[in-house]
Amino acid sequence: MGIKTKHEYIESLRQLKPTVYMFGEKIENVVDNPRLKAGIEATAATYELAEIPEYRDLLVTQSSLINEAVNRFTLPPGSIQDLVARVKINRTLGNWVGTCHQRCTGLDCLSALSIVTYDIDQKYHTPYYARFIDFLKTVQKNDLTANAGVTDVKGDRSLSPKEQPDPDVYLHVVEKRDDGIVVRGAKAHQTGSLSSHEIIVLPTRALRKGEEDFALAFAVPADAPGLIHVVGRSSLDTRELDGWDCGNLRYSKYCPTIIFDNVFIPWQRVFMCGQVEFAQEMVARFSAFHRQSHGGCKSGKIDCMAGAALTMMDYNGTAKAGHLKQKVIDMIHRAETLYGCSLAASYEGHKEPSGTYFIDPVLANASKIHEGREMAEAIRLMIDVAGGFVADLPSERDLHHQIIGPLIKKYLKGASDVSTENRMKMYRLIEKMAMESADTISDIHGGGSPEAHRITIFRESNIDAKKKAAKRLAGIVDA
Amino acid sequence: MGIKTKHEYIESLRQLKPTVYMFGEKIENVVDNPRLKAGIEATAATYELAEIPEYRDLLVTQSSLINEAVNRFTLPPGSIQDLVARVKINRTLGNWVGTCHQRCTGLDCLSALSIVTYDIDQKYHTPYYARFIDFLKTVQKNDLTANAGVTDVKGDRSLSPKEQPDPDVYLHVVEKRDDGIVVRGAKAHQTGSLSSHEIIVLPTRALRKGEEDFALAFAVPADAPGLIHVVGRSSLDTRELDGWDCGNLRYSKYCPTIIFDNVFIPWQRVFMCGQVEFAQEMVARFSAFHRQSHGGCKSGKIDCMAGAALTMMDYNGTAKAGHLKQKVIDMIHRAETLYGCSLAASYEGHKEPSGTYFIDPVLANASKIHEGREMAEAIRLMIDVAGGFVADLPSERDLHHQIIGPLIKKYLKGASDVSTENRMKMYRLIEKMAMESADTISDIHGGGSPEAHRITIFRESNIDAKKKAAKRLAGIVDA
Amino acid sequence: MGIKTKHEYIESLRQLKPTVYMFGEKIENVVDNPRLKAGIEATAATYELAEIPEYRDLLVTQSSLINEAVNRFTLPPGSIQDLVARVKINRTLGNWVGTCHQRCTGLDCLSALSIVTYDIDQKYHTPYYARFIDFLKTVQKNDLTANAGVTDVKGDRSLSPKEQPDPDVYLHVVEKRDDGIVVRGAKAHQTGSLSSHEIIVLPTRALRKGEEDFALAFAVPADAPGLIHVVGRSSLDTRELDGWDCGNLRYSKYCPTIIFDNVFIPWQRVFMCGQVEFAQEMVARFSAFHRQSHGGCKSGKIDCMAGAALTMMDYNGTAKAGHLKQKVIDMIHRAETLYGCSLAASYEGHKEPSGTYFIDPVLANASKIHEGREMAEAIRLMIDVAGGFVADLPSERDLHHQIIGPLIKKYLKGASDVSTENRMKMYRLIEKMAMESADTISDIHGGGSPEAHRITIFRESNIDAKKKAAKRLAGIVDA
Amino acid sequence: MGIKTKHEYIESLRQLKPTVYMFGEKIENVVDNPRLKAGIEATAATYELAEIPEYRDLLVTQSSLINEAVNRFTLPPGSIQDLVARVKINRTLGNWVGTCHQRCTGLDCLSALSIVTYDIDQKYHTPYYARFIDFLKTVQKNDLTANAGVTDVKGDRSLSPKEQPDPDVYLHVVEKRDDGIVVRGAKAHQTGSLSSHEIIVLPTRALRKGEEDFALAFAVPADAPGLIHVVGRSSLDTRELDGWDCGNLRYSKYCPTIIFDNVFIPWQRVFMCGQVEFAQEMVARFSAFHRQSHGGCKSGKIDCMAGAALTMMDYNGTAKAGHLKQKVIDMIHRAETLYGCSLAASYEGHKEPSGTYFIDPVLANASKIHEGREMAEAIRLMIDVAGGFVADLPSERDLHHQIIGPLIKKYLKGASDVSTENRMKMYRLIEKMAMESADTISDIHGGGSPEAHRITIFRESNIDAKKKAAKRLAGIVDA
Repeated sequence: MGIKTKHEYIESLRQLKPTVYMFGEKIENVVDNPRLKAGIEATAATYELAEIPEYRDLLVTQSSLINEAVNRFTLPPGSIQDLVARVKINRTLGNWVGTCHQRCTGLDCLSALSIVTYDIDQKYHTPYYARFIDFLKTVQKNDLTANAGVTDVKGDRSLSPKEQPDPDVYLHVVEKRDDGIVVRGAKAHQTGSLSSHEIIVLPTRALRKGEEDFALAFAVPADAPGLIHVVGRSSLDTRELDGWDCGNLRYSKYCPTIIFDNVFIPWQRVFMCGQVEFAQEMVARFSAFHRQSHGGCKSGKIDCMAGAALTMMDYNGTAKAGHLKQKVIDMIHRAETLYGCSLAASYEGHKEPSGTYFIDPVLANASKIHEGREMAEAIRLMIDVAGGFVADLPSERDLHHQIIGPLIKKYLKGASDVSTENRMKMYRLIEKMAMESADTISDIHGGGSPEAHRITIFRESNIDAKKKAAKRLAGIVDA
Repeated sequence: MGIKTKHEYIESLRQLKPTVYMFGEKIENVVDNPRLKAGIEATAATYELAEIPEYRDLLVTQSSLINEAVNRFTLPPGSIQDLVARVKINRTLGNWVGTCHQRCTGLDCLSALSIVTYDIDQKYHTPYYARFIDFLKTVQKNDLTANAGVTDVKGDRSLSPKEQPDPDVYLHVVEKRDDGIVVRGAKAHQTGSLSSHEIIVLPTRALRKGEEDFALAFAVPADAPGLIHVVGRSSLDTRELDGWDCGNLRYSKYCPTIIFDNVFIPWQRVFMCGQVEFAQEMVARFSAFHRQSHGGCKSGKIDCMAGAALTMMDYNGTAKAGHLKQKVIDMIHRAETLYGCSLAASYEGHKEPSGTYFIDPVLANASKIHEGREMAEAIRLMIDVAGGFVADLPSERDLHHQIIGPLIKKYLKGASDVSTENRMKMYRLIEKMAMESADTISDIHGGGSPEAHRITIFRESNIDAKKKAAKRLAGIVDA
Repeated sequence: MGIKTKHEYIESLRQLKPTVYMFGEKIENVVDNPRLKAGIEATAATYELAEIPEYRDLLVTQSSLINEAVNRFTLPPGSIQDLVARVKINRTLGNWVGTCHQRCTGLDCLSALSIVTYDIDQKYHTPYYARFIDFLKTVQKNDLTANAGVTDVKGDRSLSPKEQPDPDVYLHVVEKRDDGIVVRGAKAHQTGSLSSHEIIVLPTRALRKGEEDFALAFAVPADAPGLIHVVGRSSLDTRELDGWDCGNLRYSKYCPTIIFDNVFIPWQRVFMCGQVEFAQEMVARFSAFHRQSHGGCKSGKIDCMAGAALTMMDYNGTAKAGHLKQKVIDMIHRAETLYGCSLAASYEGHKEPSGTYFIDPVLANASKIHEGREMAEAIRLMIDVAGGFVADLPSERDLHHQIIGPLIKKYLKGASDVSTENRMKMYRLIEKMAMESADTISDIHGGGSPEAHRITIFRESNIDAKKKAAKRLAGIVDA
Repeated sequence: MGIKTKHEYIESLRQLKPTVYMFGEKIENVVDNPRLKAGIEATAATYELAEIPEYRDLLVTQSSLINEAVNRFTLPPGSIQDLVARVKINRTLGNWVGTCHQRCTGLDCLSALSIVTYDIDQKYHTPYYARFIDFLKTVQKNDLTANAGVTDVKGDRSLSPKEQPDPDVYLHVVEKRDDGIVVRGAKAHQTGSLSSHEIIVLPTRALRKGEEDFALAFAVPADAPGLIHVVGRSSLDTRELDGWDCGNLRYSKYCPTIIFDNVFIPWQRVFMCGQVEFAQEMVARFSAFHRQSHGGCKSGKIDCMAGAALTMMDYNGTAKAGHLKQKVIDMIHRAETLYGCSLAASYEGHKEPSGTYFIDPVLANASKIHEGREMAEAIRLMIDVAGGFVADLPSERDLHHQIIGPLIKKYLKGASDVSTENRMKMYRLIEKMAMESADTISDIHGGGSPEAHRITIFRESNIDAKKKAAKRLAGIVDA
């Protein structure tokens, strides 16, 4: 059946045995590790909401592929309605978890593959689309979570893949066998790779003739032999590890680097191998979908940040300060801008040859350009509204300390109808939403760098029509 | 028949005999006055495009009210598709005329009336909706243009209408007769009032008990006795009057103040009279529609400005300057932001009790807030790209002067494949799009002041849901 | 004696017989032409203030060169105090005239020449510095106004001077004679050229070997034979010409293009001829001084705009609106930013080999980068505060019209203690300060394009010191 | 003698026995605690630089009070040169430590006291100034560091001190004795309180009649009985505690809350007690000085961030990417803006009755308003330039791990001439400068909230002069 419960999801992860290092130690139990658990919980919310009647219709739909109800995170968009649902689900989830739920990237990969494998086959009569559909059925039937192995570590960025001193800085085929391929390389910023059953690998950039070995797309289980997850550090990562001052009591985010140390991929899971001219297409489709996703989840996170700012105004006794209300309006305005452009990109989508729907890339990138700048501003505004304790709030251990605790309770009291404990909790949540690097850096770099979004918006705009309109009004007749 | 040609439209205006003053003189022939004609041409474009096959489907639709094809500018939205069409038509027209086409405000009034007259009738069993539908049929059958008599001159803004020393600064009933009412007052910023057949008057603000005489909505022919149009000055107004250096060779904009010097309105054209609690509703609906309209036309104007900037790069020999291309991207990004939020507001619309569709006000206001700031920035960027001659280009009279002309031609030459004349024309268009006050001030104040948009976005947002989400994550249980 | 009265200044201009075209006509009487007169009045303010006791000490100082009191606009800075005085005078004047006073560019040229002619002489034993000092004495003794002939018309900007199809698009020597040189070319954006006694020409860009003929600096009387001023159009230029609705009742700005149609320059007035490697130096020094000047005058203009906004709040009855006050603060903040950076650039100046003081170029450019963006924003804020009548205020001819006048007076009334006439005058001034292209475009392009300011700030910063500091903290030891 | 070495400074702190809690535990050894030590090192840099010949002249000057050489951090400004030196020292130190050096607040208190105690005495014949001078001599002779006990915890911010349910949320006198006073309350955001010998307490806001007990200024040793430092959490606080992945290998920042649990202050150290009308003056002077300080140190921090961004471009192979260079220019521009306004505020300072020099408050606040917004933007730009590893770089423990280490070294390699270790170190420093909450929140809230800066700039501007200038130009003669 195509829908897992949250409990089933977590238990299914428990069956996996990935190779994981974190902070210089090998991690044997991923699911119960407090740092990783908080991240898994965020992805688990995508399962949990499908169980809650209020949200079920948003999350669950029928798959015509397997003729079963499925979680939308396993469904490449087959209609405008599906495109729109992606944005609304992401906004709901962004608000629900107050961080990244980490499941969108897998769907963005599935969506890109469902377009491009078809296009490659049309040109080369390759078997990629059929293989992909086979894989997709597995994903849907088992309600799997996948993660996007897109960003190569890249080495010296002024050099193309084949110019690199060490070619392994871009993932590539090192051996082709009868039963499959062996790949080597590393993918960075693998948000949620340990919350995933599968890693879906796509190329990270345009490729040229001679770079066939880098033109690769495939899926591989997160615990495949040779695949090593190295969980990176983030600013607040010890909070969950220590178990206190977490801020967000339920959810968090983590981002490993995944090393592919000679990993075997059976042909049945290889969705592109060598078609260099489709590498750009693959990453562009993925990125466009991913930028659309951000327009949803990040506006949802601002919703939650605005809620935190407003609550803190209640707690501080500043609910009537006009200039603070103006700042909250500035936050809301930013949320609606991300959301509006992302929604519009969805409503203005169209059908690709494979039957999958694709969003309007100009509007999706318009949303993402705002994100790169405006999330930082929304965070700044939240801090401005909340006050200086975002920087230096005493620990909850101090609050519960026998000697110092009563003094903390006395002196950190705000409005008389609010307990010091609640005020401290809200400050801690604001700290988490503002200062968790695993979260905030993706506002800038998620879905490609800001410059990539700008280049895309120019390339996809109709420049000639714009010039023509101006010339007509100026009375200029081109020769 | 419900569709006028451009020619029929202009001839129909010629039949009207409005009372008009401009620059201290009485104007007898409006249609052929060069200053006013350029504005009328902009509105005429809404008729002209309906004649051009490429645009006909965008502009023309079937009215179920009169069972005829009608121009969409006479059709209150009856579906999501109608809401979306409004934005797309406006973007097309904004790009086509490079200024304000001036016909949206009438439709925005019709749309607001089609919702609120119904609501009033539901409460008070008044006959407003039926009267309005009767008027609407006339508008559709004759493809009329209307303009929005919304903004009262307001006197001392710290005082409410009834507190004003001179009550006439808010338009109000001065006499009720058996056959109708007599009204007095003045409406400012009446863009396109002389391009219109009808003036539709709505209240400009919320009203309270005791202010019944100000709670007025009605329609009146643009040449009704006692109605006086005083065309205001705009920065480039003498260019059309003198007939050279116009910049935009086809279109322009003008904005009269209309004085209602004891104007009689028959009851059949009165759509609200005395229901103070609906005044706010009326202006809020109008404003929301109007802010949505702006998201279309202003993005279309940026399209045209980006085209002008890009053309000037060709003409100046700066087409390869990376920093200028970045500035054009910044312009395009702004256009897409206005458009995206406005489109999203349309797709997320809903049906009101009367059957008319209403847009999402939060998203519509998000678009307008951007306009207030970003149009100025888009203009600044266009000037930056184009260069200093936006300020001080010699006149076309100099270009054609026997002695100085050849020197101008020689010294204002840019890229060798472009004539000096064309380069000067493009500079002149850019000057027009950047410096025409009739146009640019409406980026800020059109559809209400920026502060109004901000207040609306806050009022229409679900503040409690935002707080609740934050508290859940912080682990706060409200008592 | 070194100080002219305002009256003497205007009479001295009357003695000049420049060749002038404006709007396709030859202008014989410059001083009494209403359009040009308003600009001349702005420059005359630099003489007038020297007569007013309150400002005399600011404007007048002792010249050690001629041992007389001189107007500071004839004095290259010989001390930090002189540098600072430049900024303060400009702020005072910007506020006093509410536009550009047009006399700074000449001083900026004198200041650049007083540094670079000395440096050239040191290298080449040329006689430039002595000639310049001789010219400077004349300027000081006669309290002359000069204007900066810097910006060539440039033709195709992707080509260097010698690559141009028509070499005349960069001013150059066409003949060298025993008694002097003959030059041909054209200089654009010659703000105040008809308010000047002398035109000082500098090169507009860096030059390379082979471009010696373009490496030119000299002074020439504004009415020299062959020198033709073509006054360009600006957005509000007909207001002064018609004599009503001027907005700023006293001052305005105009910008000719000057064509040098084989103009003879005696050697005694040639300050550089052929030293290509000093061309960049010459324009860089001029630009840096000019950017510093802008930091003064433009902050003064914002002062005046803030005053207009605040007055309009009084007149509209909105003096207590918190959000409008916030916008005025945003305006003031921008003024202080321009001023602060420009002042700091002055205080941090240093002595050059010639004895002239030069400002800190990084800080001067920091000020100018802000101007390019923030003046537009300050104007937008002023319009936002003032209201929509900036776009479309009825003419003062309407106000004084027998029939329509009383109605205008009645309906444009604001606060009860303010006459309609005064309110209209203030709206008209705001329109002038916001929409006069001759003024506002120089906020962006004056002193070189925004990109030029950015490149300068990078080039003049100590990049290596910055890297070194970061490496030290990261614990990186460079090999 | 008035100059301590760095070593002497640290040893002098070792003599103190403050009461300290951190993360729920009592800390007995402050100086060797790794978390606190990194902060103390930052303050120690103010001593260290005084020992380095290159910086000695910047840091050390002669005190006319004790007739000895002193560190400038003990010297209230007695000249314009002293004011300027403050900014330059802070910029140097901000760049040197890449964080907050934490010693400016004490000097800002000394500077405020040296003005206001004199003014109080002039009015009331109190002995405050003499006591203050006596204290200042001690500070200078012993080269002491002080910290600013200004920000009360404030309770419900909608209530004034005497309206609070618990009056202790504003520090106040609870007992007056012959030998001194006993005070109770708490001060938040006490940056560097454990790096200080003395805590200087000032009131945090304006006070009214009836609030005499809150109108308090005094100095108290950091280890006085009853005084409890509770070190708050900051985002990266466990990095120093664990001793790896610190980013900034030398310096950090921490911020305790200090609780005054019935602390006795002898009269000789009381500098104000009860003069409510001077409370506002005291905090305003302190804040103005502190905002000026920020203009220095924060521009220095941006210098260091720009250096880190540029270095990372070298390491990533992106040194030639034009759009990244533009972003570094945007960073530098911001640094110069803060610096320029702060410098100008200093050069435009003036002498107060006591002989101390005070800065121009409008320009100082202009600098601080920029800081509140632009530091966040500079950080965002640095992250944009550096790339995604700011979020999730593997730990240095991973780098040194036997198994995973070599793979990390291989895959995180950038440009071939840079070791992976150095690249990781630079990423870690960037993470520290971007994500350390103890640092970044003070960009917004340090020296009072952004709204406070705005109100100040308005209050201190000459509003009437601005209005008058506008009216003159509009031709308005006030009755």
